[in-house]
Amino acid sequence: MIRVGVIGYGYWGPNLVRNFAELPGVQVAAVSDLRPERLALVKSRYPSVHTMADHREMLADSGIDAVAIATPISTHSDLALQALQADKHVLVEKPLAARSEHAIRLIEEAERRRRVLMVDHTFVYTGAVRKIKELVSSDALGDIYYYDSVRVNLGLFQHDVDVIWDLAVHDLSIMDYVLPYRPCAVSATGMSHFPGQPENIAYLTLFFDEALIAHMHVNWLAPVKVRRTLIGGSQKMIVYDDLEPSEKIKVYDKGISRTSGAESVYQMLISYRTGDMWAPQLDSTEALRTELRHFVRCIEHGQAPLTGGEVGLRIVEILEAASRSMAERGRPIELEKCGATA
Amino acid sequence: MIRVGVIGYGYWGPNLVRNFAELPGVQVAAVSDLRPERLALVKSRYPSVHTMADHREMLADSGIDAVAIATPISTHSDLALQALQADKHVLVEKPLAARSEHAIRLIEEAERRRRVLMVDHTFVYTGAVRKIKELVSSDALGDIYYYDSVRVNLGLFQHDVDVIWDLAVHDLSIMDYVLPYRPCAVSATGMSHFPGQPENIAYLTLFFDEALIAHMHVNWLAPVKVRRTLIGGSQKMIVYDDLEPSEKIKVYDKGISRTSGAESVYQMLISYRTGDMWAPQLDSTEALRTELRHFVRCIEHGQAPLTGGEVGLRIVEILEAASRSMAERGRPIELEKCGATA
Amino acid sequence: MIRVGVIGYGYWGPNLVRNFAELPGVQVAAVSDLRPERLALVKSRYPSVHTMADHREMLADSGIDAVAIATPISTHSDLALQALQADKHVLVEKPLAARSEHAIRLIEEAERRRRVLMVDHTFVYTGAVRKIKELVSSDALGDIYYYDSVRVNLGLFQHDVDVIWDLAVHDLSIMDYVLPYRPCAVSATGMSHFPGQPENIAYLTLFFDEALIAHMHVNWLAPVKVRRTLIGGSQKMIVYDDLEPSEKIKVYDKGISRTSGAESVYQMLISYRTGDMWAPQLDSTEALRTELRHFVRCIEHGQAPLTGGEVGLRIVEILEAASRSMAERGRPIELEKCGATA
Amino acid sequence: MIRVGVIGYGYWGPNLVRNFAELPGVQVAAVSDLRPERLALVKSRYPSVHTMADHREMLADSGIDAVAIATPISTHSDLALQALQADKHVLVEKPLAARSEHAIRLIEEAERRRRVLMVDHTFVYTGAVRKIKELVSSDALGDIYYYDSVRVNLGLFQHDVDVIWDLAVHDLSIMDYVLPYRPCAVSATGMSHFPGQPENIAYLTLFFDEALIAHMHVNWLAPVKVRRTLIGGSQKMIVYDDLEPSEKIKVYDKGISRTSGAESVYQMLISYRTGDMWAPQLDSTEALRTELRHFVRCIEHGQAPLTGGEVGLRIVEILEAASRSMAERGRPIELEKCGATA
Repeated sequence: MIRVGVIGYGYWGPNLVRNFAELPGVQVAAVSDLRPERLALVKSRYPSVHTMADHREMLADSGIDAVAIATPISTHSDLALQALQADKHVLVEKPLAARSEHAIRLIEEAERRRRVLMVDHTFVYTGAVRKIKELVSSDALGDIYYYDSVRVNLGLFQHDVDVIWDLAVHDLSIMDYVLPYRPCAVSATGMSHFPGQPENIAYLTLFFDEALIAHMHVNWLAPVKVRRTLIGGSQKMIVYDDLEPSEKIKVYDKGISRTSGAESVYQMLISYRTGDMWAPQLDSTEALRTELRHFVRCIEHGQAPLTGGEVGLRIVEILEAASRSMAERGRPIELEKCGATA
Repeated sequence: MIRVGVIGYGYWGPNLVRNFAELPGVQVAAVSDLRPERLALVKSRYPSVHTMADHREMLADSGIDAVAIATPISTHSDLALQALQADKHVLVEKPLAARSEHAIRLIEEAERRRRVLMVDHTFVYTGAVRKIKELVSSDALGDIYYYDSVRVNLGLFQHDVDVIWDLAVHDLSIMDYVLPYRPCAVSATGMSHFPGQPENIAYLTLFFDEALIAHMHVNWLAPVKVRRTLIGGSQKMIVYDDLEPSEKIKVYDKGISRTSGAESVYQMLISYRTGDMWAPQLDSTEALRTELRHFVRCIEHGQAPLTGGEVGLRIVEILEAASRSMAERGRPIELEKCGATA
Repeated sequence: MIRVGVIGYGYWGPNLVRNFAELPGVQVAAVSDLRPERLALVKSRYPSVHTMADHREMLADSGIDAVAIATPISTHSDLALQALQADKHVLVEKPLAARSEHAIRLIEEAERRRRVLMVDHTFVYTGAVRKIKELVSSDALGDIYYYDSVRVNLGLFQHDVDVIWDLAVHDLSIMDYVLPYRPCAVSATGMSHFPGQPENIAYLTLFFDEALIAHMHVNWLAPVKVRRTLIGGSQKMIVYDDLEPSEKIKVYDKGISRTSGAESVYQMLISYRTGDMWAPQLDSTEALRTELRHFVRCIEHGQAPLTGGEVGLRIVEILEAASRSMAERGRPIELEKCGATA
Repeated sequence: MIRVGVIGYGYWGPNLVRNFAELPGVQVAAVSDLRPERLALVKSRYPSVHTMADHREMLADSGIDAVAIATPISTHSDLALQALQADKHVLVEKPLAARSEHAIRLIEEAERRRRVLMVDHTFVYTGAVRKIKELVSSDALGDIYYYDSVRVNLGLFQHDVDVIWDLAVHDLSIMDYVLPYRPCAVSATGMSHFPGQPENIAYLTLFFDEALIAHMHVNWLAPVKVRRTLIGGSQKMIVYDDLEPSEKIKVYDKGISRTSGAESVYQMLISYRTGDMWAPQLDSTEALRTELRHFVRCIEHGQAPLTGGEVGLRIVEILEAASRSMAERGRPIELEKCGATA
């Protein structure tokens, strides 16, 4: 039996508690939150869970094995560090930290104490993204030409982070998981329409050493909700629409053929071909359930998580570079962890 | 009776000929094309039209009042200049020229000879874009926050120009028409996936002096066709989907309200409101018909066209700056004609 | 404080319990179900609720004011009668009874004992259907020409009732609420594809004294989910798509104009006109919450519910007639409660 | 060289002329129409085509081999008979005749004179319908459970025929082509909302000897255009949406499994399974081009057309029965040509 504590019972915390509560072999032992009314809500729903305002009480409880952190981003790394130092396994809501130095500090601490450090990149655990990973890994797409995502809606404004840290973090973590390449530079543009507030609309371009380009559009101020990613390959192309109720992934047997011949402005050397479209059946298990099961398994078997500290750090580094580029109207910023993965 | 000649009977030329032929008070007198099989096609469809391989024969015909040019981009300005010098009124397919100096030369020549010089920015003449213009001009949207367009599909590769010059030119001309502001800088990124070929995917961000940002995504290699523009304002927002058969324009009574109060990471100072959606009935006249009627009227009454040389030049200048920025991975390039229009 | 008991904790019961539990002034006192595992689930979620296998225990509890019944259709009227005889107010899941005699018996009993008898026609309490009612009542549509609904998906097969009693009951209750006319005859066709099982696909046409026709398509075996109703009027037409996340109701300013003139097969005497489309903002409160609040208010103030016994009876009578017609391959069956409502 | 004449240059005639004109080995020799302005239009488009008001002039021309008839329905059989008697091969716009006796008369005449008699069931020649035929014939769908089509829009009112004869004729001809069964009875309901005019909305149910049901909804008065057919089978199901620009056919690997076990109202004996969806690439040749090529080939090789007189007659017989049933509010009418095809 793994005993879990959850810090923060705001927007995401209830999902963590609910899913942990339903996992066999897991017990939600404690929940902390600064707001009494949130703790009262926990009590009404889970009378047997211990609630507290001060998370240090939870960390001091040696009966608790693991802690999940669902608090504002600026507090992630400090709370995670405290939890690791109290010898807890830690799951941190995305992004892992607000600064890459802090993420590095967490990785070191987790390693030293041999604790699981995992970041909650939820989309990596969806049936849709896992299917994309499978398709890309099997070379079904051929050479990858581009990765283009749009994640916009009329949504909650955040006050402590810009829209890149709030929304693009999802797309970056999906891209990091499915592509076998890591970006070498980023150019970002964006704007805040409300003085003193962080940027509410942003565009990121990611450059690679390969003949591949990635782009993300994130926006808190769109009249319609769009969650669409296009992945173009030389053999096949994917449209991933997360709002589709059943056919989230469509694989198009479309591509480009180069034909040889004399070149002229009137002659096409490059033509396209179109074939069938196919929408594979997807695992519809709630992603967070799959993810928490994985977290528990990593604790039990001392495994490295799929979305561990290093992954979390890579994403934070891109977020930092993107913010820097955005402040300079798109000037490209180099990234270090560049190139094809082994 | 206005007698018209058309140079180039490839993809767009047939549309020009068909629409000119149906306009009262207009006669298609001549069509030139380098390819005999295209001229044969003209003859089979319009036996009374004079056809020729050499456009100079057309320009030498003093009975011809106006010439429309629908040839590869690299030839636009040279052909247009010849036509002006032959004292013809000239309509040039978009973009007006491949270099801004050439566009300037055309403007000067047209002015000197008091000829109409018009660029074929077709979308400006659609019912949809005219309705957007009307909504923006009437301040229905409030402050304009952003202009975001996507124009992608699996389409014809051009060999003489990149995808910005081929596709973004449409979005730039629409934006130039509907917005009362002119961009001050551009950052563009993109890529060619085929060695020796121009970029086939590109992203443009346009910066303004105002709290407004514009972005365009153009792509010849997308598995699905998308033609969607979002225009966000403080009072209302527009979704313009050109592929919708009937409801191309949707106006959302959605926006943002700033509420005052104590600031904290848990408190929302900015909230959104949602109201009705409204899809206005649009004029469904073929845009090219409206446009050519306007061209003829400008000739007859000596009027300045809605999409004259200056407009064409502005767009070419942005295209040039975008190409330059794209070559430097998004480095922002300043634009001169910046600011609010009178 | 109204104390409520719920009989049946299968598919719909949990929604009743959850919504009652969240209503101020209401307490869920007891839940009964024949299956121990369902009762265990209640206990885990609501430790303070009294659970029992035998509903008679609940009815015998004089501290319970009202009972909601969410059991198989064949048991509705018997359980409701017992509850009324125990002087409880009663809410019955749709349809009110499996036979119209039984519904009549319930109405009489409720009247005699001055108890609230309400049937759970949930859709009547949605923001969408209430908006349609408002539009129809205000004569915005002009003369109503037709009511056409499609309710199909790959869904749960019922064993005790056919697809008309399971799905068309929703459409009949919506139609009964929004239209000011009652049908005079019904013709139904359908089929069972599984020997010994009730019909899994069916089509109903409803005839009126007015120049109005209604039709419903219900199907448990469709590869895609459709929930779409068209309501055509002489002035405006409504499309109600319940699967649309935000724009469930679209009002089209489209209609028919009769023009006078000489009649010939080549001349159109009837032409159509098209105008704007408008999607009104809708109340998005969960329908069941609105409905249960109404139930409680009816109990407290002795009011007649919007969907009381008479409404439930009317629907059961149509369902009976439709089943009879379906057995005779569409032979029309007359209905008694025919004509315009006051 | 086959020389063709076309009678009627209204809505459909121009499509016939254009497609015949582009077929190699075919020459459009003559067009007749009662309206001088239509003949003028022919002349402006095809200067070499002989035009005439009186079709008898065309029939008297022994140089003309075949005649296509695109006139109002009431005139189809008389014109076709005259053409056959003048020893022409004949293509008749759908439906073949306004009465089944007339269709029989045409079949006899064509047989006696060994002329090709073909009815223009255009949809049979589309890539989409041919793909459906292929899927059904290969038993990919398993047992066919139902055929359900919706064909509605705000469209042209016809004055000489009701909406069944105008629109359902398309669906009946598609169904006749793709299903290996012929219906045994029909129940139809419908209504005219304009005194003295034919029905503008109608619903048809078709009964078969097999465990199969078909239904069609046709409507000239719908605010939105819908062209959607569902075909349900025990193994797979098809959604055919003719308005989809590219993925008109979607094949769902969905179906029903019967599981054995003790029966109770709480236990499901019938459950469904869902798998991949697949949208096959379709031949996008214009259907009319394929059809006319087939017509010409039948003439040249003395072949029987895919949509010959017998097919046309079968459809007319169903249309007659449907009209009769509609007049009696859905009373089922038996059909003779009932059962499985060889």
